[in-house]
Amino acid sequence: MKQQAIPYKIYLDEAEMPKAWYNLRADMKNKPAPLLNPGTLQPMTAQELSGVFCEELVQQELDNDTPYFEIPEEIRSFYRMYRPSPLVRAYCLEEKLQTPAKIYYKFEGNNTSGSHKLNSAIAQAYYAKKQGLKGVTTETGAGQWGTALSMACAYLGLDCKVYMVKCSYEQKPFRREVMRTYGASVTPSPSMETEVGRKILAEHPGTTGSLGCAISEAVEKAVTSEGYRYVLGSVLNQVLLHQSVIGLETKAALDKYGVVPDIIIGCAGGGSNLGGLIAPFMGEKLRGERDYRIIAVEPASCPSFTRGKYAYDFCDTGMVCPLAKMYTLGSGFIPAPNHAGGLRYHGMSSILSQLYADGLMEARSVKQTDVFAAAEMFARVEGILPAPESSHAIRAAIDEAIKCKETGEEKTIVFGLTGTGYFDMYAYEAYHEGTMQNYIPTDEEIQATLDKLPKVE
Amino acid sequence: MKQQAIPYKIYLDEAEMPKAWYNLRADMKNKPAPLLNPGTLQPMTAQELSGVFCEELVQQELDNDTPYFEIPEEIRSFYRMYRPSPLVRAYCLEEKLQTPAKIYYKFEGNNTSGSHKLNSAIAQAYYAKKQGLKGVTTETGAGQWGTALSMACAYLGLDCKVYMVKCSYEQKPFRREVMRTYGASVTPSPSMETEVGRKILAEHPGTTGSLGCAISEAVEKAVTSEGYRYVLGSVLNQVLLHQSVIGLETKAALDKYGVVPDIIIGCAGGGSNLGGLIAPFMGEKLRGERDYRIIAVEPASCPSFTRGKYAYDFCDTGMVCPLAKMYTLGSGFIPAPNHAGGLRYHGMSSILSQLYADGLMEARSVKQTDVFAAAEMFARVEGILPAPESSHAIRAAIDEAIKCKETGEEKTIVFGLTGTGYFDMYAYEAYHEGTMQNYIPTDEEIQATLDKLPKVE
Repeated sequence: MKQQAIPYKIYLDEAEMPKAWYNLRADMKNKPAPLLNPGTLQPMTAQELSGVFCEELVQQELDNDTPYFEIPEEIRSFYRMYRPSPLVRAYCLEEKLQTPAKIYYKFEGNNTSGSHKLNSAIAQAYYAKKQGLKGVTTETGAGQWGTALSMACAYLGLDCKVYMVKCSYEQKPFRREVMRTYGASVTPSPSMETEVGRKILAEHPGTTGSLGCAISEAVEKAVTSEGYRYVLGSVLNQVLLHQSVIGLETKAALDKYGVVPDIIIGCAGGGSNLGGLIAPFMGEKLRGERDYRIIAVEPASCPSFTRGKYAYDFCDTGMVCPLAKMYTLGSGFIPAPNHAGGLRYHGMSSILSQLYADGLMEARSVKQTDVFAAAEMFARVEGILPAPESSHAIRAAIDEAIKCKETGEEKTIVFGLTGTGYFDMYAYEAYHEGTMQNYIPTDEEIQATLDKLPKVE
Repeated sequence: MKQQAIPYKIYLDEAEMPKAWYNLRADMKNKPAPLLNPGTLQPMTAQELSGVFCEELVQQELDNDTPYFEIPEEIRSFYRMYRPSPLVRAYCLEEKLQTPAKIYYKFEGNNTSGSHKLNSAIAQAYYAKKQGLKGVTTETGAGQWGTALSMACAYLGLDCKVYMVKCSYEQKPFRREVMRTYGASVTPSPSMETEVGRKILAEHPGTTGSLGCAISEAVEKAVTSEGYRYVLGSVLNQVLLHQSVIGLETKAALDKYGVVPDIIIGCAGGGSNLGGLIAPFMGEKLRGERDYRIIAVEPASCPSFTRGKYAYDFCDTGMVCPLAKMYTLGSGFIPAPNHAGGLRYHGMSSILSQLYADGLMEARSVKQTDVFAAAEMFARVEGILPAPESSHAIRAAIDEAIKCKETGEEKTIVFGLTGTGYFDMYAYEAYHEGTMQNYIPTDEEIQATLDKLPKVE
């Protein structure tokens, strides 16, 4: 293979790294629906939210107009520890697929949390520290967010209390140990430590948990502990704002080589990676400057976009959080214990939900075994062992590249490789052993939880 | 923290990556002692070695004179998948230690094998493929070399058979699964598959294995299978040659910013990382152009340099391999099951042994709990979870930086961060639980295996 005009990996210089986050909402004509107080059904005020979240994060959460938020120098300094992340040209995958498509991926896995989650973790921990708090509470599914937050808190000297979805806690004992290395305390959820946890356990004694349950517990712990606030790794507007650093770097790297993507693909659980990756591209699309196909990929076992309803719902199973308008399977939906722990969320970012409702992006769901087939092929040719979550995007990117082979189109595909799968070897093992199953909820199962959506006019 | 003149991470451009490996032996006045045929005690000929190793690798093994070997374009293409690796300025560690020292580390862990081993794996697999072989056999300790070789073989379509030291196999089930993802077969060693394995098991029924045992099995398998050769991840001259890419990149990155190190530190098991990292610096030292302090760091549980003897010995426990002159604890030495699997080798690279005998470098041994204390501190401030092996170098770098604090000297310290510890969480857990032990062999234990060294005049 000759030396390519475009390198395998495009790294920005540190001086080229983004100095501000981009707030996609500023360019949305139809703003995402506001969070509602579940009691009054009125939009949550800053004051109400500040009991749960740090003050500056509340401002970021509610601000639909300011297009850019400066990244504080302390956070940029932390970013320089592991960013810029490489934008990789997947030459080897292209060759393997014999496709005329040009494939790029933004690789966010080269840090110890193993994913993009660190981008928002440090931001949220920073504002908590700035506000003089003692610590933060959170939930984690696959463990990536919990690890990321532990790292950020260790760096800043904050206490960190993590509720980890029980099935991930059991599948990934090593994740817990990494969090402990960073000084966090980790509790399997649902737990007996909180009122909501005890209630969920009483109703579903054998439950393997869900992100929704764990959120409820973490929120309860935060609001009942002095000097603590709750932080969340996905879904929220503030998280998508912080994650825009992914898209901004991606766009800067592509611009450097004059590359314009046709298709942008990301996996979608709560939407943080996808929302961050697409932000500047969607901005151009919203402003009518350029068009892109944007594809959200979700697991067939938890298909919020493709089989959910666009409605107000609780963000958590315990119904202690505000209501958000989003594509949802119902806050009571507990997905089968598939292995992409980070995608096991019943709802979806309000921002992405509004964009999807407005026809500005597509969504598709993929089966787990197809996802692992893509993961293994990718690992062998590109040399990176991908996380199951990220592999949903790989699956869709490969499928699009195969279509290009059939049509002869030389499309440029960019996808988000959110993280590595080092802690997902049980899932890979199940795939190798042929024991991996494709759980797909029935229409009746989904309808049952949708029937319990809160009534909001 | 202000934007620094020297970035957090120095990346070379792909065009700046080394195009040739540097053969340190060419600049050594006292060449490393040749491998001996254990039967005749005569230097091994190319013909004899080619029954075990690939032909081009045999040439590289025996060539003490050619200073540079061109890196074939296919290997450079593979290198571009995960190289250049970053040279990181450890600003956060410096701040934590409040030291005037300037600390840099060359981070080789950003690839799925999790270590520098991939640098030689792809080279050895490439020459095997070029020779038209079906596959290769090898041993692995911590699992990093086995993973690296599996990745290289998957990429080139070669069969890969790995003998994994039993205690690592049991401590690291996920490593096995990663190798399987890359299509390798993995057998715990000692096994009943080989004659030497059966013999070792008969003599030491409860043994947890050692690199020496696993080497014997892999060699036997290679020489008794049609179309197979044996490949080794460390110790050999050829491996140090390939690993010179680490040092060449490090030096190029430092040169770019006009930085000259005072101290260069690396962990030492068989010597591949250390030999690669120091190569161009030691070259300058040998040619009298510049002086550096070079420090090898080994575990107190397996102290080849600091408590071994410089003598001819078998490279493997089964005594099927050639004799090498090296610092050794005796090929019968089976180290206690400490957690730095990659450093559990009774001997040491002949090149490094000669340099050490000539007083050109220092060595020290460190205790495991001290190593993990350094690892945890490093993880918290630098954000990378280090492998136990690499953490030996971290320990020494921190100790040197603390000395600088005491003396006020602004020394520049460079160390090799060979890999990540994602698969070493049992060890971290033992450290957190306070159950980690510091195994240190007694003088009598070492003497017992040294007494059995082969008699070579």
